[in-house]
Amino acid sequence: MDQQKIDILLCAKVWQPEPWVEGLSKSPYVNKVHVWPTEEDLSSVQALFVWKPMDEGVVESLPNLKWVSSLGAGVDHLVNDQQIPSDIPITRIVDPHLTRDMTNYCVMGVMMYQRSMDKHKENQETSTWDRLPYSNLKVGVLGLGELGGHCASTLATLGFEVSGFSRTPKEIEGVKCYAGDQMSEFLKPIDVLINLLPVTPQTESILDKNLFERLSDGTYLINVARGNHLVEDDLIEALDSGKLSGALLDVFRQEPLPSEHPFWKHPKIKITPHVASVTSPESALNLLQKNIARLIKGEELLHDIDRSAGY
Amino acid sequence: MDQQKIDILLCAKVWQPEPWVEGLSKSPYVNKVHVWPTEEDLSSVQALFVWKPMDEGVVESLPNLKWVSSLGAGVDHLVNDQQIPSDIPITRIVDPHLTRDMTNYCVMGVMMYQRSMDKHKENQETSTWDRLPYSNLKVGVLGLGELGGHCASTLATLGFEVSGFSRTPKEIEGVKCYAGDQMSEFLKPIDVLINLLPVTPQTESILDKNLFERLSDGTYLINVARGNHLVEDDLIEALDSGKLSGALLDVFRQEPLPSEHPFWKHPKIKITPHVASVTSPESALNLLQKNIARLIKGEELLHDIDRSAGY
Repeated sequence: MDQQKIDILLCAKVWQPEPWVEGLSKSPYVNKVHVWPTEEDLSSVQALFVWKPMDEGVVESLPNLKWVSSLGAGVDHLVNDQQIPSDIPITRIVDPHLTRDMTNYCVMGVMMYQRSMDKHKENQETSTWDRLPYSNLKVGVLGLGELGGHCASTLATLGFEVSGFSRTPKEIEGVKCYAGDQMSEFLKPIDVLINLLPVTPQTESILDKNLFERLSDGTYLINVARGNHLVEDDLIEALDSGKLSGALLDVFRQEPLPSEHPFWKHPKIKITPHVASVTSPESALNLLQKNIARLIKGEELLHDIDRSAGY
Repeated sequence: MDQQKIDILLCAKVWQPEPWVEGLSKSPYVNKVHVWPTEEDLSSVQALFVWKPMDEGVVESLPNLKWVSSLGAGVDHLVNDQQIPSDIPITRIVDPHLTRDMTNYCVMGVMMYQRSMDKHKENQETSTWDRLPYSNLKVGVLGLGELGGHCASTLATLGFEVSGFSRTPKEIEGVKCYAGDQMSEFLKPIDVLINLLPVTPQTESILDKNLFERLSDGTYLINVARGNHLVEDDLIEALDSGKLSGALLDVFRQEPLPSEHPFWKHPKIKITPHVASVTSPESALNLLQKNIARLIKGEELLHDIDRSAGY
């Protein structure tokens, strides 16, 4: 094998593999891109690029694996995958477009709620002219990392009153930042709660009855992080009791969301099918190609994750 | 009459007068606020605060009128009102909240179109998981004044490719600015056209067949300026032919929009009832009170308009 070129296994599952194969094949550092499932000999594969869920047996078929990369910003599907040896680095996509798109989706969600756009749509159906008032909103962002920090900062620039909560203390201009044991203080005054936490054992199921009870009545929830953050039954209870006024959900414990799931028909839930921010092959490929060159040169990979922290 | 205090006539029409009366009455410079229509003697009134439409006979009843202010950003209802003598200054509300709210509404409109939010809502009704793709959009802003300039600049900050057109040349960071005879060049490449022009004899009915024909097929229109900018029949024709892919309309030639108007039921038109940016009495009162003090002290009024330019 040419030492300046590597073989890659692509395990894109629900995504179309073609744009990835095409883009990666253009790299001067790529010998061949295999696509899972395959019967080919994978013993020369050094890099595994994967989107969830990863089938059993994938890593087993790669005796020379040196690197695993997620094809998206999320790595929760890889961190706890026992197939991946602990000495293999795992990287994720950090893409300015991903961040921008996630922020813009959240901005849209906040504004559609603020401006009663669903009610306006209903009114249009009955030709009803009703100048519904709107008011300033206090928005709270849960998680102030790459995504949450950008979202909070942007909402502040747009004139919203913004606060944020993170595990470790942060400072963001225009954003009132809470950390550590200040969760209740953070939750109490807000009108809209946006969840942009990573999934870790500490944050799984964090959006539960206990957290909802610390919000003011009528808070609106936007979950764009992971379905595993949310306790589904607790959400329905909080919506039905009026504790929450509504929810915009882009992520779910099971995706695609099963057609019989009660979320679909709940009058206070708005659903989008995990499209808040979608990795575009073009921009992610750019980062993957940089890391392929780094792997070959023996340099440290960009955006490798801390597996003990979980992100 | 106490020379340090003035009488005001409020002609708020479709708006509720109470918050204005209450706010103005707190001013140390206000003697009395009269509300039109009234049988009271108005001979001591020096200031007329008005929202459209202004009834015939209002100005005639004010022999000592010294100043007219719109209660909103728009003054098209006053500029051409023959009741108002040409030597009486007319002012308008310039309110940072008004600008912010207008920009945010436009941002929301662009994003809802970009993310196919109406289609997602339809899909939710049939429990359909369909990850509709989205793409980057080129947004063109018509009018680069107080409102248009802020809107264009904000959209650029949010990652959109933004251009703008104005009568006189402008420079705005991150925005490709066109002016004068470059209208066709401005219109051709854009995906979304936002109208934020003032209404003047030159801009009335500017959104017509002739302009639409210079757009690329499938452009989306957002009109938040004035209903008089739009030729209604030309819009319906452009939507039905596919020249325009849709329209978000907040303003109309006749408001409230009559219930039998074809816009209500058109599948490609989204309607909101003139709520893109609503003057809040609190912030507008702040400016009005400053100008009341200036009138009494004989100082120049803030935000008076150039009646020959029309804005």
